[in-house]
Amino acid sequence: MKDYLKHDEWCIIEEGFHREYNEITESVCSLGNGRMGQRGNFEETFTGKTLQGNYVAGVYYPDKTRVGWWKNGYPEYFAKVLNAANWIGIKVEIDHEELDLNHCEVSDFRRVLNMKDGYLERSFVATLASGKQVKVHAKRINSIVDDESGAIRYAVTPINFDGKLTLTPFIDGDIKNKDANYDEKFWDEIHRETAFAEGYIELRTKKTGFHVVTGQKFEIFQDEKAIDFQSFPLKAEKYVASQVSLDVIAGQETVLVKYACNLSSENYAVEDLLTEAKAYLKRIAAKGFEKMVAEQADKWESKWKTNDIVIEGDVAAQQGIRFNIFQLNQTYTGEDARLNIGPKGFTGEKYGGSTYWDTEAYCIPFYLATADQQVARNLLVYRWKQLGRAIENAGKLGFKDGAALYPMVTMNGEECHNEWEITFEEIHRNGAIAYAIYDYINYTNDEAYLAEYGLEVLMGIARFWAQRVNWSSHKQQYVMLGVTGPNEYENNVNNNWYTNYIATWCLKYAKESAEKVKAMDAARYAELVQILNLNEEEEFGKFQHIIDNIYLPEDKQLGVFLQQDGFLDKELTLVKDLPASDRPINQKWSWDRILRSCFIKQADVLQGIYFFEDDFDIDILRRNYDFYEPMTVHESSLSPCVHSILAAKLGDKARSYEFYQRSARLDLDDYNNDTEDGCHITSMAGTWMSVVKGFGGMRVKEGKVYLSPFVPENWKSFAFKIRFRSNLLNIITTSEQVTIENLEGADIQIFVHGEAFDVKAASSVVVALGETQLV
Amino acid sequence: MKDYLKHDEWCIIEEGFHREYNEITESVCSLGNGRMGQRGNFEETFTGKTLQGNYVAGVYYPDKTRVGWWKNGYPEYFAKVLNAANWIGIKVEIDHEELDLNHCEVSDFRRVLNMKDGYLERSFVATLASGKQVKVHAKRINSIVDDESGAIRYAVTPINFDGKLTLTPFIDGDIKNKDANYDEKFWDEIHRETAFAEGYIELRTKKTGFHVVTGQKFEIFQDEKAIDFQSFPLKAEKYVASQVSLDVIAGQETVLVKYACNLSSENYAVEDLLTEAKAYLKRIAAKGFEKMVAEQADKWESKWKTNDIVIEGDVAAQQGIRFNIFQLNQTYTGEDARLNIGPKGFTGEKYGGSTYWDTEAYCIPFYLATADQQVARNLLVYRWKQLGRAIENAGKLGFKDGAALYPMVTMNGEECHNEWEITFEEIHRNGAIAYAIYDYINYTNDEAYLAEYGLEVLMGIARFWAQRVNWSSHKQQYVMLGVTGPNEYENNVNNNWYTNYIATWCLKYAKESAEKVKAMDAARYAELVQILNLNEEEEFGKFQHIIDNIYLPEDKQLGVFLQQDGFLDKELTLVKDLPASDRPINQKWSWDRILRSCFIKQADVLQGIYFFEDDFDIDILRRNYDFYEPMTVHESSLSPCVHSILAAKLGDKARSYEFYQRSARLDLDDYNNDTEDGCHITSMAGTWMSVVKGFGGMRVKEGKVYLSPFVPENWKSFAFKIRFRSNLLNIITTSEQVTIENLEGADIQIFVHGEAFDVKAASSVVVALGETQLV
Repeated sequence: MKDYLKHDEWCIIEEGFHREYNEITESVCSLGNGRMGQRGNFEETFTGKTLQGNYVAGVYYPDKTRVGWWKNGYPEYFAKVLNAANWIGIKVEIDHEELDLNHCEVSDFRRVLNMKDGYLERSFVATLASGKQVKVHAKRINSIVDDESGAIRYAVTPINFDGKLTLTPFIDGDIKNKDANYDEKFWDEIHRETAFAEGYIELRTKKTGFHVVTGQKFEIFQDEKAIDFQSFPLKAEKYVASQVSLDVIAGQETVLVKYACNLSSENYAVEDLLTEAKAYLKRIAAKGFEKMVAEQADKWESKWKTNDIVIEGDVAAQQGIRFNIFQLNQTYTGEDARLNIGPKGFTGEKYGGSTYWDTEAYCIPFYLATADQQVARNLLVYRWKQLGRAIENAGKLGFKDGAALYPMVTMNGEECHNEWEITFEEIHRNGAIAYAIYDYINYTNDEAYLAEYGLEVLMGIARFWAQRVNWSSHKQQYVMLGVTGPNEYENNVNNNWYTNYIATWCLKYAKESAEKVKAMDAARYAELVQILNLNEEEEFGKFQHIIDNIYLPEDKQLGVFLQQDGFLDKELTLVKDLPASDRPINQKWSWDRILRSCFIKQADVLQGIYFFEDDFDIDILRRNYDFYEPMTVHESSLSPCVHSILAAKLGDKARSYEFYQRSARLDLDDYNNDTEDGCHITSMAGTWMSVVKGFGGMRVKEGKVYLSPFVPENWKSFAFKIRFRSNLLNIITTSEQVTIENLEGADIQIFVHGEAFDVKAASSVVVALGETQLV
Repeated sequence: MKDYLKHDEWCIIEEGFHREYNEITESVCSLGNGRMGQRGNFEETFTGKTLQGNYVAGVYYPDKTRVGWWKNGYPEYFAKVLNAANWIGIKVEIDHEELDLNHCEVSDFRRVLNMKDGYLERSFVATLASGKQVKVHAKRINSIVDDESGAIRYAVTPINFDGKLTLTPFIDGDIKNKDANYDEKFWDEIHRETAFAEGYIELRTKKTGFHVVTGQKFEIFQDEKAIDFQSFPLKAEKYVASQVSLDVIAGQETVLVKYACNLSSENYAVEDLLTEAKAYLKRIAAKGFEKMVAEQADKWESKWKTNDIVIEGDVAAQQGIRFNIFQLNQTYTGEDARLNIGPKGFTGEKYGGSTYWDTEAYCIPFYLATADQQVARNLLVYRWKQLGRAIENAGKLGFKDGAALYPMVTMNGEECHNEWEITFEEIHRNGAIAYAIYDYINYTNDEAYLAEYGLEVLMGIARFWAQRVNWSSHKQQYVMLGVTGPNEYENNVNNNWYTNYIATWCLKYAKESAEKVKAMDAARYAELVQILNLNEEEEFGKFQHIIDNIYLPEDKQLGVFLQQDGFLDKELTLVKDLPASDRPINQKWSWDRILRSCFIKQADVLQGIYFFEDDFDIDILRRNYDFYEPMTVHESSLSPCVHSILAAKLGDKARSYEFYQRSARLDLDDYNNDTEDGCHITSMAGTWMSVVKGFGGMRVKEGKVYLSPFVPENWKSFAFKIRFRSNLLNIITTSEQVTIENLEGADIQIFVHGEAFDVKAASSVVVALGETQLV
């Protein structure tokens, strides 16, 4: 854990240059807009510790799989987020001496990520080897208004000399992925051109053939006025640059404003890319840097209006939660159903593929409650678009007749992962994808989604489950053999309770959904029967037989569901009794030891009770929580949030807050020593859930919002915004009361600790909170 | 399956050049002597399909591990058998036209591996592009008398021209392993020198630093007389050669005799290697090629005297079994306890490391019965030498206090394999290593071995098992979680019956062995108590508690032991009902599908019943055989032999023979389409077992030899030799009778179908066989 970033409500602040942590700060200070993004790298040359990272959404490369021992069914390729052309570069020379903070004395260094207005700012004074001192101030946005562009204002002021300042804004496309399996470069150059103060490079990815044009255009100001200058093009493979030399005097600020864009063939015809890029840059340059910054702030203001969580009395917590919300909004905007939420977003390239079940289990609830319903809907449509691939994927594993298995990790719908115990067996992901459809409809009431897209996906998933179980003559029940549950610290187990439960739920939900569509829209249903080649009687009959005869392991004596068949044969010890030197076990223990231990990586049985909470009474929750949580090591960043929500439900405020804390500042404090690889984007949604579903106790049931809020002891109050259908609500909780502000929309009925309150349009209701309400 | 090799009792014969199968023939025609070996490659240049392979025993390279996803505990390196300098090379040019069978018309081609006398012979007529025809006859041995050397007689006769014949014998050390993980070369050149008709190259392996000097020395004969000639040295990196040009006339045979040696720093001081190599070559050249060939034949004759199996009435079977015996003897001679039996011997480099549990489970019985007991003993001592490494290996997995886990695959005692489900979980190998000690002592009565080496190994293994089981509060028994049994088509299962059984047996045997040593040699025992840091009461108490309380899964109703806890939940279908298009399942099905199927790769429960046959009555065997065999796909070359032996025991002659046939000609007929990678050396021992333990029913119990022979229907008779303690026996079986010849040693009592017969020294006994005796 590190604590070098200043606590501040709206900003992430590095004061003094922490070069040893530079890669961490780069991750944290990443900017993104859903279409492109880059790490908080320096514009000027830096030869110290850095991971240059620029990413363009949807542009990937299928890196040849590397395995020790091949297993049938493994994918040939792992589709990777591509590190793309570096568009922020500005080489700075002073009398032919290059500015490089790795070789300067640096003072007054300050790097600030301003989350309120959405920009990154950096200032410092550098003393070069020659003794010359310059002051630099750089400010950068990755525009969320013009979302294929970014702009930089880079100001240099000589402090103690007059001389020659050479500025060379450049685009460097000669880029490698840090995690390439065979150390290959993934980009080919197609075209490059340089004009006065302007340059373009067109690159094409190998194999996938994506074209990306990256362009730059710049102006130079002195004394706040644009100046005339000469620019000399520099040429190299996959590189464009324009060199400008200026005579400068001490105290005089020279400002370079650089506009850049990244246009990809995902959004333009290849032959138009270059023309479009030129027009794009012309347009934003005409708008100007200050206007872009102002528009950026306005758009962020409108986002915060529906997204913000305000915590009083704990600046670190305030900063942490805003950082999470900020990064989630930077990663995915929901405008393009071809995109999804990578585990590292635009902050790094680790874990390659973009989509995990994190999206459905953790991210959709966030976007549902903070954005237009179209955003969550697009995440669902993304999976619908990939249904054909999921059916092919299931086919590779021997399933047929429209059974679909969604990949563990994917970019374009094809499986990207290659560990048999995960790729082939961690199949509960299929359930989460169905659950997300339920979650979305429950929240939005958009039942039409079922007819339009949902039912096809649900049927593909249900068919998979119906084929994946088998009848055990021995048990006279259906069993499911050889799976890995959410607890990845058990592999290839039989009858993982969570998987069996969600599988059966999927069968029920698919059947009910079919009935619903049939009732709502008989014509569309008839069409779907054709599309799905559905034999209702036979298939739903089979589903029902499984639903009625599924084996769900439990121990009646203990009153708990069993994580899997063999769980009670394990040596059942508690995490608290593990020597500190043995933790984290995933770094200290060999894999077999982890597997046969009782220790749990993340919620498994409890994930099921969380998803399907209305199926279980509070005593069942308590018994299972009391049994499993003490054996849980929470070595996944996705673990604490579910436990935080469940602890809250059980009235254990302290534990709920403790879990929240484990993930809230995960990246800001580099809790797991891995933020240098990028931020844990999807687990940020989990942190948000801890606050809203945990401390706020927010649920939606049968079209109504339910709250059971309490304020953690360390906080004075907290307030969260939620969009629910046509309403925008602000829920402010103190230890004494909860205030429900109905900011937008009609009158609404809200339940607080089970009691209904009517909140009129544009007004608010205050509900007193007593201790008793938490039991 | 291929059928291009001629059937012959003593020879493997390729008639006509089958260039498409050349790599297969190269594997089959490999020569070896336990210290070095090479594939049946051509001496002259061949640019067609070939895998040049020369191997020096004990010389390996730790190739950096390649994995998809790292698991804690994986080894960093995979020690590989090294492809070493090619010493057989002779470049042949005729008037500057190179002889290369890939670019010639080839007629009268014949390649013969003579197993009786131990040489490889090849002859052909080549018509070059120029129309010139030459006849070549090449004969090669890999000396089993001078076991660091080989010799070649290479004769060239112009047929239709007079001209210039250029012969360039060379050694090429610029060699790569075909299966190198990162395409690296593993050898560095240390020294090379050339003298008249002589040359040496000293190479050193990277990382491991083994030095190997390879030398050549040659003579040239015309009209059967050594001639004078000039030799011009050719120089290149890692390469020595001497070029000789001769004027030849049509019909005149020119013979080049080349002697070569491979001396390694495993057997000589590095500084002496070169001198020793020179002396070595001088010595064998003085002996001369014909004498070497004659000595080779003599030594093979003496080997066959104790090894041969004679089958009357089936030439293919006769050839198959002799091929297996021949290759086993070429691979391991038992003189050096640092060496072991690689799965491909000296016939290829696949599977890298040298030692698998195959050695203990399949090879030791062969060497016990066919060679001096020192040979099997050295295989045991090999493991004793690696005990420290096995303890370290167990330590990496969290075991302590002297617990030893022998590696799945090893070269020098370190684990080389990296699949968690195998490396960490296929731990039954540890049991096989203990079982081999039992097997050896049972056969030889060398109980002193326990005191000298055996007990230390047994205690290390027993301690591992005692720590590896855990007490299940639920079952109130000891269980063993997360293992892979011999059936590798189930991974990470709980309570694999075979593993639990052999583990418990190890505890018993270690305890009994300790008592035996204590009784035999109190002083040594006291020493061992020190060495082992043994607390008798506590440790043996714990062993006994486990022995008394181990959980061994069985189904009373079916009357079978359960392969593992979840076995009966599987869909129990039969191999005969599998569509042909689904087989072999390891090529047609994804791994998860294989894992959750009931299909078994090789004997698992039945392996246990085979090892511990006296613990189970015939009905138990029959029920388990009838239950498991029909679900067994035999997709391991080690599977059929055990089933063949068990079928024989059950009186099912036809099935027993059918299983035998599946492995007997595995490589000769390229049954699995993989002989090009090398021969299946260890499974050859299994084939031998099918004959001796299956058809012959040979067992040793309490110091007595038991036989239950029958002759397979297709055969007239078969005879096998066994060495039992001081006796050499020949057992000849026809359908009517069995003849026991006591060839060497004192009078001996032999049991045939349960009845005792006294066989006097140097005489024989004939026992009539009736049908009834087989029930």
